[in-house]
Amino acid sequence: MSLTADDRFAIADVVNGFAAAVDDIGNVEGVVALFAPDAVYDLAALGMGTIHGHKGIGDFFTTAFGGMAHNAHFMTNIVASATAGGARAQAYGHAFSLSKEGSMLEVKARYSFDLACTGEGWHITRLTMGLLIPLG
Amino acid sequence: MSLTADDRFAIADVVNGFAAAVDDIGNVEGVVALFAPDAVYDLAALGMGTIHGHKGIGDFFTTAFGGMAHNAHFMTNIVASATAGGARAQAYGHAFSLSKEGSMLEVKARYSFDLACTGEGWHITRLTMGLLIPLG
Amino acid sequence: MSLTADDRFAIADVVNGFAAAVDDIGNVEGVVALFAPDAVYDLAALGMGTIHGHKGIGDFFTTAFGGMAHNAHFMTNIVASATAGGARAQAYGHAFSLSKEGSMLEVKARYSFDLACTGEGWHITRLTMGLLIPLG
Repeated sequence: MSLTADDRFAIADVVNGFAAAVDDIGNVEGVVALFAPDAVYDLAALGMGTIHGHKGIGDFFTTAFGGMAHNAHFMTNIVASATAGGARAQAYGHAFSLSKEGSMLEVKARYSFDLACTGEGWHITRLTMGLLIPLG
Repeated sequence: MSLTADDRFAIADVVNGFAAAVDDIGNVEGVVALFAPDAVYDLAALGMGTIHGHKGIGDFFTTAFGGMAHNAHFMTNIVASATAGGARAQAYGHAFSLSKEGSMLEVKARYSFDLACTGEGWHITRLTMGLLIPLG
Repeated sequence: MSLTADDRFAIADVVNGFAAAVDDIGNVEGVVALFAPDAVYDLAALGMGTIHGHKGIGDFFTTAFGGMAHNAHFMTNIVASATAGGARAQAYGHAFSLSKEGSMLEVKARYSFDLACTGEGWHITRLTMGLLIPLG
């Protein structure tokens, strides 16, 4: 099984759609809609545990958005490949988040998106985030 | 109507071609050639108004290039979709501009490219620029 | 001759694969495997000369990796076109390298990848690196 060019563009659109939703601060529904209902958002590498399902992911972003004023997630290095369950996309993210208190957080992250395609398009089944360079 | 994979690559090439032309300081003709003759370059969100047509865009870049020593526009998060008139591509740009006086401007921008395809390929009919994070 | 969408994705995978290998510090074999046996790695624009072949490239990265703790190469602006010998991909790289001594090097680079496709896929025959903005 291999991915078509259309699959690869659709998968890149999900990766970039995740950034767009996270950068549209407060758009919890937009973030959640990118995930499968039982998806896992794995932030263990950041010491923030593992978040489960639409409710868990929605609650997480509701809290996170609360402190944010502006975000910019520059997504790069997107490489997709077929898996038994659908596809995996590796990506880098150079992320900036300006808090309401005026402090800027800069993160150089590595993402791994597991995705499945249903009649409603590609959705994230597991998103794992790690750091390319430790926070300084 | 939907975009083919070839359309999507051609559109990404225009987005990246815009960065390449702007980073090739002084190449006003290269920038202008990416736009349709009656294109609009909308910088209203930056308080810089709206620029019209090849002559307006050429004059704008002639002036802007005058103060620049080196540019780097890292274009990311390119997502294209079909529109009634052709296509729209959303993109992020992490831009750096080093002035001749030695000051560095860093911009975290969001771009929206409206494009139309003629016998001579895809051209920009409207380019709107905004900021993901306010200038600091 | 023109590139298919599959070619373009395969070529982008090589560009991003180069970043992944360089960011996987110590993975000399992974870097070398992306190059054709007689490839040239041209760093003349950086005053670092021209490196030849698998052995030269492997030795170069063995030395370079020795001082590095963490790398992040954000690859953007990938534009590929067909050439007589295969393809050329232009790309930008926003690169960060944290040394073992704790100093951070940030580079805004321009890359040109010459590539050839054999029965074993696309490989780099020449990689030329330059700077978009001089090191500050």
